[in-house]
Amino acid sequence: MADSKKKTVLLIGGGSVGTIGAVNLEVGGLAEVSIILRSNYKAVTENGYSIQSCDHGTLKRWRPSHVLPSVPDLSKENIEPYDYIVLATKNYPDVPPSIAELVSPALPSSNTHTTLVLIQNGLNIEKPFLASHPTTPVLSGVSLIGSAEPQPGVIVQDDRDRLLIGAFDNPNIPKELGQEKAKEFVKIYSAGGKAECVYSEDVLHDRWRKLVYNACLNPICAITGLDSGRLRLADGAVEGLVRPAMREIVEAAKAKGVELNPKERDDVVEFMIEVDALELYLQPSMQADVGKGNYIEFENLLGEPLREGKAAGVPMPTLEVLYQIAKAVQWRTKEARGLVKIPPPKNH
Amino acid sequence: MADSKKKTVLLIGGGSVGTIGAVNLEVGGLAEVSIILRSNYKAVTENGYSIQSCDHGTLKRWRPSHVLPSVPDLSKENIEPYDYIVLATKNYPDVPPSIAELVSPALPSSNTHTTLVLIQNGLNIEKPFLASHPTTPVLSGVSLIGSAEPQPGVIVQDDRDRLLIGAFDNPNIPKELGQEKAKEFVKIYSAGGKAECVYSEDVLHDRWRKLVYNACLNPICAITGLDSGRLRLADGAVEGLVRPAMREIVEAAKAKGVELNPKERDDVVEFMIEVDALELYLQPSMQADVGKGNYIEFENLLGEPLREGKAAGVPMPTLEVLYQIAKAVQWRTKEARGLVKIPPPKNH
Repeated sequence: MADSKKKTVLLIGGGSVGTIGAVNLEVGGLAEVSIILRSNYKAVTENGYSIQSCDHGTLKRWRPSHVLPSVPDLSKENIEPYDYIVLATKNYPDVPPSIAELVSPALPSSNTHTTLVLIQNGLNIEKPFLASHPTTPVLSGVSLIGSAEPQPGVIVQDDRDRLLIGAFDNPNIPKELGQEKAKEFVKIYSAGGKAECVYSEDVLHDRWRKLVYNACLNPICAITGLDSGRLRLADGAVEGLVRPAMREIVEAAKAKGVELNPKERDDVVEFMIEVDALELYLQPSMQADVGKGNYIEFENLLGEPLREGKAAGVPMPTLEVLYQIAKAVQWRTKEARGLVKIPPPKNH
Repeated sequence: MADSKKKTVLLIGGGSVGTIGAVNLEVGGLAEVSIILRSNYKAVTENGYSIQSCDHGTLKRWRPSHVLPSVPDLSKENIEPYDYIVLATKNYPDVPPSIAELVSPALPSSNTHTTLVLIQNGLNIEKPFLASHPTTPVLSGVSLIGSAEPQPGVIVQDDRDRLLIGAFDNPNIPKELGQEKAKEFVKIYSAGGKAECVYSEDVLHDRWRKLVYNACLNPICAITGLDSGRLRLADGAVEGLVRPAMREIVEAAKAKGVELNPKERDDVVEFMIEVDALELYLQPSMQADVGKGNYIEFENLLGEPLREGKAAGVPMPTLEVLYQIAKAVQWRTKEARGLVKIPPPKNH
């Protein structure tokens, strides 16, 4: 049974980001975490996590309070509604099942108790929940962590866990409710004193700012097969691809009321071009995913800002082509995984 | 010594296209071919070519008159200047040595005797020779053959050899000279009666028309990793990428005075989208080259029409991005082959 002083957290997705989140929530003593694992469920139930973390040091055979293989069905199991459900999975709205379907067994559509926290990238990720769970507070988590899972259950965190938490707009509930939940979540996540988890008033700004990297460098590396260091060295790639794409994001954000460059001297584009220059030869997530034959998060990272910008009248020729190519790359993965079928070759 | 009734032809590049050219020239009885081989030199000198051809049937242990491992140096060897030098290699102006350097030992810069025949794709391929060999007649060869070399020295030709030959403009020599040479070359190439080798008055039209395929489907397949059949099936790829790119080529050609769509009902764009639909799942040359870790011919196929179109004021947003990506892919190959060096990773 849950410790009554602790908030119950269902954390879906115990990969490199989610696991460090689980550690922060548990070590603070204010949360009891149930983690849902898929690919690494066997490894973690047998041996626990093996974690090497710049924030937490070395943790061996570590486990949160509960480790589960699938999202529990509250209507069938004797489980009280969770205080928080944190989503730290990748997000591919173009590949079924949807995230909303995944969460539904633990989150009735009429829910008002449980707060949803989306530690996921991109734009408009809260929209499906506004439709399926109209009265649920939904929080935005923008993570700037550097962390990887080189083997199932083995987590290497080499850059600090910085997490921006704020409330997505939801016209169906009082604005203050979302803000309170966001501040409470920051408190329980920060209680251990290891993570830099900060409350943010301006969720849209956080998300558009991260898109300067994620809608541009991320797909460009995935498509060209050059990591972020090589892309900087490759003849003409920054001027020809990266900078034009980033400028389009800055203009789209501006058209949506988000000013990413308040001062010329702190140009976000030049900052993002250089941001991981210290870590030469870093593969952004989409490039790593293409390399592993995984789906890529191109719809929320590239498709949504492109659609928002175009609808606001911003010319986005570079992102348009990158988006179309990313879509074709995703189709290739869908075919490889049997999600689309092609006719046999014709004789001639 | 050369048979005095025959034209001497130095054919550089005995791969899938060049070898069938050598066969046509030899079987017609009007030419004596010296072929320059590199990767398949050993295989062909030892065992000859093994050819399976829809035009010529099965040829075993076939060799042209002479097989050479490198371009002969006329200043050092006792060889009369050739009547024709045919280039049937790939063409990468961004990777040294240049084609003009490659040919130079057999073609003095003051040459007026030898005619150069470029059976290569893309635009402005004659320009380097106008500079290095200003008085040499240069012919354009646009090949529409279907042929492959699955192993060194093994040629499988599964679609007819159709070759358009015409003279590139050269302000330094009489126009008639180029036309005469083109007609003569058509005669010796056609003499065997197997190839459909045709004289063309309008070299630029031939080249721009082929670019509708080669500047668009070819790099799109290379970049997305989808062959031409899959690209047609992939959700949105034709509308989002292929058709916009092809329309840009048609507009660029028009701006350069080349009308590719004289009649709406024969739309060249729709023709090129469907042109190899019979051969489902065909990898265009650039995609095959990327797959093999080879350089791609992106500068003449994509860079030149892009530069021509932009200089003529045509908006080419799709081809611009495809070009920049192709350039990054080429840089990746250059790094893999040691042509560019990168600094070691930094510690952090």
